[in-house]
Amino acid sequence: MAHITLDPAMPGIRGLLAYRPETGRPLSELAEVLLRGPGTLSRGERELIGAYVSALNECRYCASSHSACAAAQLPGGMALVEQVCAGLAQAPVPAKLKALLAIAAAVRDSGHAVTGELVAAARAAGATGAEIHDTVLIAAMFCMFNRYVDGLATAAPDDPAVYAAGARRLIEHGYLPPPASQP
Amino acid sequence: MAHITLDPAMPGIRGLLAYRPETGRPLSELAEVLLRGPGTLSRGERELIGAYVSALNECRYCASSHSACAAAQLPGGMALVEQVCAGLAQAPVPAKLKALLAIAAAVRDSGHAVTGELVAAARAAGATGAEIHDTVLIAAMFCMFNRYVDGLATAAPDDPAVYAAGARRLIEHGYLPPPASQP
Repeated sequence: MAHITLDPAMPGIRGLLAYRPETGRPLSELAEVLLRGPGTLSRGERELIGAYVSALNECRYCASSHSACAAAQLPGGMALVEQVCAGLAQAPVPAKLKALLAIAAAVRDSGHAVTGELVAAARAAGATGAEIHDTVLIAAMFCMFNRYVDGLATAAPDDPAVYAAGARRLIEHGYLPPPASQP
Repeated sequence: MAHITLDPAMPGIRGLLAYRPETGRPLSELAEVLLRGPGTLSRGERELIGAYVSALNECRYCASSHSACAAAQLPGGMALVEQVCAGLAQAPVPAKLKALLAIAAAVRDSGHAVTGELVAAARAAGATGAEIHDTVLIAAMFCMFNRYVDGLATAAPDDPAVYAAGARRLIEHGYLPPPASQP
C-alpha cells in the first residue's frame, strides 16, 4: 500500500502526477522534451537508457513501463531490452549506444562515477556533447523518478499487458497530460 | 574541466540550464514550485532537505548553494545547517523536521529504503501526507540535480561568498530564468 493516499486506478507515477498537479506538470514536460523532443538519439534509444537505469535501481514500475516503450521503438524489441538489462557488456548494441549506456550506469551510482575515460570512450564512438549531456540528464531524471515512485510505495501492476498498453498510449500521445486536465 | 563545453562564467547547474534551455525551463519550474511554491513546509525547511541530500551525495556545488539558501531562511542559520549535515541524530531540529530529513536520507539511498516505520514516525510527529510527498520528491529531485551537476563535471567555486550571493539572488528572484531569457 502506498505511503500516502493515491487514486488506486492510477499505479506508479501516474497517481503521483495526479496527486500534486503543480509538480506533475513540470515533471511531465521534462520527460516529454528529454525523451521525445528534438534530438539525435532516437526515442527508442532514450527510452532504453531510462529502462536500463530503472532496472539497475530495481524500480519495477519504471523499468516495466520504459522497457515496453523502448521495445516498441527499437528494431531489437523486448529481446534487446532484456539483454541490455541483463548485462550491458554482452548486449548486441552499437558501440556509441553501449558507451552512452555505460555513462548512464555510472550516473546511477553517482555523478562522481562519470569519469573522463567513460566520456572519452563515448566521444571516440561518435557521441556528441549534446548526446552526452542528454544521456547524463536522462539517467539522472530516472534516478529521481525511480526514487519518487518507490519512495512513496506506489503500486506496480504484475500484468505485462498493462505496460504494453501504457507504452502504446505514451508513444501515440506523449508524456504531457491530456488538455482537459491541464490548468 | 566540464565533460561538455559550458559557459565558464556560469558554474554548477547554471551553465547546464543555459546549455539546454528546453530542459532548463521545466527543471527550473520544478525547483520553483517545489522549493518556493505554496506548501506547509517553510522555504528554509525545504532548502534544508535539499542541502542535506546534496551533502550526503557529496555534491559540493548543490550542497553549498542550498546550504546558503537554507541558512538565510532558517532561524538557526548556517550553524544549524552544518549540524544537520554533520549528523542528523544529534542536530537540534524539531521532531517533525527530523523525521522528514530521515525520510530524505532514505530516499537518497533508494526509494525502497523508505520504510513504513520511517513514514509512521513522521506522521506521529505531525507530518501530513502532502509534507511526506514533498519531502520524497525534494530528496529525489536533488538526487537528479546532484548527478546532473557532478556527472558532467561542472565547476564549483571555492569562495563561500559566491554561494551567499547566489542565495540572496534566489531568495529574491526565485528559480525561474529572468524574462529576457525565456522563450
